[in-house]
Amino acid sequence: MAKVHFIRFRVRYAEVDRMGQVHSSRFPVYMEMGRTEMLRATGLTYRGLEAEGVLLVVARLSITWHQPARYDDVLILETTLDRATTARIDHGYRFTREGVLLAEGKTTLACVSADGRPRRLPGSLLEVPGLEE
Amino acid sequence: MAKVHFIRFRVRYAEVDRMGQVHSSRFPVYMEMGRTEMLRATGLTYRGLEAEGVLLVVARLSITWHQPARYDDVLILETTLDRATTARIDHGYRFTREGVLLAEGKTTLACVSADGRPRRLPGSLLEVPGLEE
Amino acid sequence: MAKVHFIRFRVRYAEVDRMGQVHSSRFPVYMEMGRTEMLRATGLTYRGLEAEGVLLVVARLSITWHQPARYDDVLILETTLDRATTARIDHGYRFTREGVLLAEGKTTLACVSADGRPRRLPGSLLEVPGLEE
Amino acid sequence: MAKVHFIRFRVRYAEVDRMGQVHSSRFPVYMEMGRTEMLRATGLTYRGLEAEGVLLVVARLSITWHQPARYDDVLILETTLDRATTARIDHGYRFTREGVLLAEGKTTLACVSADGRPRRLPGSLLEVPGLEE
Repeated sequence: MAKVHFIRFRVRYAEVDRMGQVHSSRFPVYMEMGRTEMLRATGLTYRGLEAEGVLLVVARLSITWHQPARYDDVLILETTLDRATTARIDHGYRFTREGVLLAEGKTTLACVSADGRPRRLPGSLLEVPGLEE
Repeated sequence: MAKVHFIRFRVRYAEVDRMGQVHSSRFPVYMEMGRTEMLRATGLTYRGLEAEGVLLVVARLSITWHQPARYDDVLILETTLDRATTARIDHGYRFTREGVLLAEGKTTLACVSADGRPRRLPGSLLEVPGLEE
Repeated sequence: MAKVHFIRFRVRYAEVDRMGQVHSSRFPVYMEMGRTEMLRATGLTYRGLEAEGVLLVVARLSITWHQPARYDDVLILETTLDRATTARIDHGYRFTREGVLLAEGKTTLACVSADGRPRRLPGSLLEVPGLEE
Repeated sequence: MAKVHFIRFRVRYAEVDRMGQVHSSRFPVYMEMGRTEMLRATGLTYRGLEAEGVLLVVARLSITWHQPARYDDVLILETTLDRATTARIDHGYRFTREGVLLAEGKTTLACVSADGRPRRLPGSLLEVPGLEE
């Protein structure tokens, strides 16, 4: 288990704007896919966490673009777990196409319960190898 | 109260594909806006219905396009209530831009409870003037 | 080459509504993925077609839902080529989860040139094994 | 003409996730609406700029969330023009619901020509009252 996870996906037609570029609003969706699959690689699922009343909401998000991604491109998204405390999880993201860096991002997730109140990350999550600091 | 309702909205940049046309997937969202606002005009809200455990799910949807809608276009959506029984609600939709018909659609909604089981439409909904058959 | 093609994909978090169901507007995007990959399996790409000035626009679309698809579900989409003439292409779609039919759909595509005028499907496309009728 | 512009819009059903919150990926779309309408208030349109070969691409974007936005909420988005040079435009964004701050964001736009190369912002844009620094 590593603190880094890679996913590979193809840009959908509906994700591209009339400039022929992947619209900025699509990147938060990709980033969510990246951290979801990183979690799955540890043996947990975000669906399972939610079923237990552990909700992770995005509290901060930032993205910097260097080159546009385009329709039908196959992108590699590298997700890193940068920091995890009982209150927050920080991830980093790097989007590349054939080795060229297209965009970079960061998110901070906060843990809340089903009623929306802040709660501590469950120990089971922090004990996942690679998640503890 | 009429069985017809009109909304007016502007096409967003993110809704247009690289052909410069509003992507097909955006029309179901517009149609949902049309019937939501038609319901609001009767004094009810779909948010309120859901809070009472009345969920309306789309069981059937069809759309025919005649002309493309484009970025920044101001569209008029005419929503009609075609039929309402205790089990299903049928709506019709017509999208125009400056009087030109761009697209037409139909939906059939089914009523389910919060656990996903079919349920009867509440009488309060069927008694709404214009909703009864 | 067959007139049937299958893709497998996982439902993304952002595709699910507050009822916990994949929103109706997501299915046209999936259907587009299905026919794009069916085309790729023949050795052509839709990106390549567009580069040659062959644009395929959705003229008709219909979907019937039987069961909801949910977050993190792995869905199988079966795309069939039902009919192809020099003017139109008809596809059929069946969404299943572990063998259970969730939804079915149909589309009719029309061929247009870059300026939006109707044009004949190029012979190269109709000569693709499996595409001719 | 001011360096501040307000828009008011209602959250659509399709924009809300299964936690009942507006999904993070929807905010870049709202922010784009905010700056588009701010531009329109000056007498220009982004559609018109693109027709002249002036494309504005998002180079940086950041958002911080304080409270969730929910289905059917009426939100006010305050867009500010923070800085405009011949190369870049910086905007700030504040989302409120009945006076309560829900989220804040920033974007940096870069100006490119139709072929994707960086270009200077046209003088006509910089001369817009309120856009000059």
